[in-house]
Amino acid sequence: MAVYQQVLTQNGFIDKNDLYYPFEERGLQFGDGIYEVIRIYHGKYYLLNEHVERLYRSAESLKLKLPFQKSEMYVYLDELLEINQISSDAKVYLQATRGSAPRDHVFPDADANLYAYAQDLARPLDKLENGVATITRPDIRWQNCYIKSLNLLPNVMMKQEAKEHGCFETILHRDNVVTECSSSNAYIVKDGTIYTHPETNNILHGCVRLRVKKLVKDLNIPFKEEAFTLSQLHDADEVFLSSSTAEVMPITKVDDTVIQDGTPGKITKAIQQAYEKDAGLR
Amino acid sequence: MAVYQQVLTQNGFIDKNDLYYPFEERGLQFGDGIYEVIRIYHGKYYLLNEHVERLYRSAESLKLKLPFQKSEMYVYLDELLEINQISSDAKVYLQATRGSAPRDHVFPDADANLYAYAQDLARPLDKLENGVATITRPDIRWQNCYIKSLNLLPNVMMKQEAKEHGCFETILHRDNVVTECSSSNAYIVKDGTIYTHPETNNILHGCVRLRVKKLVKDLNIPFKEEAFTLSQLHDADEVFLSSSTAEVMPITKVDDTVIQDGTPGKITKAIQQAYEKDAGLR
Repeated sequence: MAVYQQVLTQNGFIDKNDLYYPFEERGLQFGDGIYEVIRIYHGKYYLLNEHVERLYRSAESLKLKLPFQKSEMYVYLDELLEINQISSDAKVYLQATRGSAPRDHVFPDADANLYAYAQDLARPLDKLENGVATITRPDIRWQNCYIKSLNLLPNVMMKQEAKEHGCFETILHRDNVVTECSSSNAYIVKDGTIYTHPETNNILHGCVRLRVKKLVKDLNIPFKEEAFTLSQLHDADEVFLSSSTAEVMPITKVDDTVIQDGTPGKITKAIQQAYEKDAGLR
Repeated sequence: MAVYQQVLTQNGFIDKNDLYYPFEERGLQFGDGIYEVIRIYHGKYYLLNEHVERLYRSAESLKLKLPFQKSEMYVYLDELLEINQISSDAKVYLQATRGSAPRDHVFPDADANLYAYAQDLARPLDKLENGVATITRPDIRWQNCYIKSLNLLPNVMMKQEAKEHGCFETILHRDNVVTECSSSNAYIVKDGTIYTHPETNNILHGCVRLRVKKLVKDLNIPFKEEAFTLSQLHDADEVFLSSSTAEVMPITKVDDTVIQDGTPGKITKAIQQAYEKDAGLR
C-alpha cells in the first residue's frame, strides 16, 4: 500500500520524499484541520462530488480557508490520478490544516496547508462476503462529529480497542443510543426496515451513507433515519456498516451476540449488490 | 518570542531549522499525542514535577509509550535550558505523538515522536493587574478532557471566538454547569469561599490549579471543589482563571456582566501575591 510518488499540495505537485512539515504546524499541534478519504475503483473516483462538497462544508464550519476554489479542486484531484497513472483500485487521502505558524490557539496569519496522496487499496472481499465482528462502547467524542476533523484521538482509541478484541469496528452509543462506529456509519434491519441515526451533529454525514439511502430507495426497502438503541442493535435481524473503504459491510457479531445465524443478511446483500453496480464493479 | 535554537527530541538535541516531520505522522493526521506547557521564571522551571507527572499520566491514559523514563526526562529538560543558556522568563512546549507511520487508526508499529522547545515569554503584567473580559459558551469537547491531548480543535475555536469578541478567554459550561475555560481553569469567589470544578474527566487537572489549592490552604481561604452554574458565575463576588502562562488571572467581565466594580477582587489579589512568592517572583 505504498503512497504514489506525486502528492498534491497547495503549492502544486511535489515528490512524496520532499514533503515535510515544520514542528509548528496547526495540524501537528492542535489537530486544527479537516480531511477526506476518497475511494477509487479502476482508476476513477467514486462519490467524488459528495466528498468535495463535504470537505468544503467542514472547512466552512471551522472557518478554514481552503487554498483552492471547488472547481480547481476537481481539476487537481483529477491530475493527481493522471500524474501518478493510477488505473487500479485505490484511495486518496486529502487533508487541510490552518497552516504553519507559531503555536497560539487563536487563528494564525497563515495560509492553509493541503496535501492529497493516493495509495492502492484492494477491496476487503473476504470481510464483505463473510461479515465482521464488532464491540460496543460509549461515544465519548465531542459534539460536532459532523465535521470531518483531524481530532481523531477517540476514534483511534476505539478502533484500537476493537482490534485488541479481534474485531473490525467499535459501535458507539450515547446513553445506549447508537450513533455510528469509530470510522463508519451503523445500520440495523428489523422486520424489513433499515434504521440508522439521523444526520445530526453527533454523526459524520457519510458519503456512502448518502448513497445507501438512494440505493435502498431504488430497491424499495424502507429506510428510517431514526436512532436505535443498544438492545435494538443486539436484537436486529441484520446489522451493517458503511464507509468509503469498508463499502457496505455486514456485521455478524455485536459483542457476544451473534446476529441471527451469523451470516450476512438478505437486505445487506441486496445493498452490496446495488453498491457494486453503482460503483461500476459488476 | 522566537524559538531557542536547540530542540529536544527523542533522538537528542537538534537544531530547530533541521526539525521536520513527514506527512504521515500520528500527530498531524489524528492528533494522536499529548503535550505540556511548562513555565520558566528567571531561567528555572516552575511546577516541573507536576507537569512531568501529568505528562506520564496522559501517556498512560492513551497507552502511548514515551521515549524516556521519567528520570531521563528531568535530565533532558534541564539540558534544554542549559544548552540554550536560558536565564529569562520563558516557557517550554513539549509534545509527544504515537510516531510516524502509514495512516491507520490502529496503533502503528512505531516509536513515539517527542519534541520540546523553549521560547521567551514575558509575564502578562497588565492583564494580571487589571483583569480580563470573558465570554461563555457550551462545552462541546469530548469526555476525557483530563488527558492533555493534541485534539484541541474545540479549544482553538473557543479561544478564537473570545478574541473576536475582544475577550481573553471563553468560559465553558455543560448544561449551565461551568467546567473550565478553553485553555485555563475557572474559579469564583462567593462570600469568602472559592469554588472550582472538581477534578473529574471533564476538566484538565491544571498544575497551577493544584498549586492554587495549596496556596489558599496556607492562606486559610475556604476552597471547595464544587462545580458552579452560569448564574452563580454571573453573581460571583470575584472570578478568576489559572494556567501556566496566565498565572492567576482576575476576570472582571463575564459576557455583559461586570463582576462587582470591575476591578480584581481582594481574594484573587491575595492568591496572586502568594503565587508570586511561591514562584520566586517577589
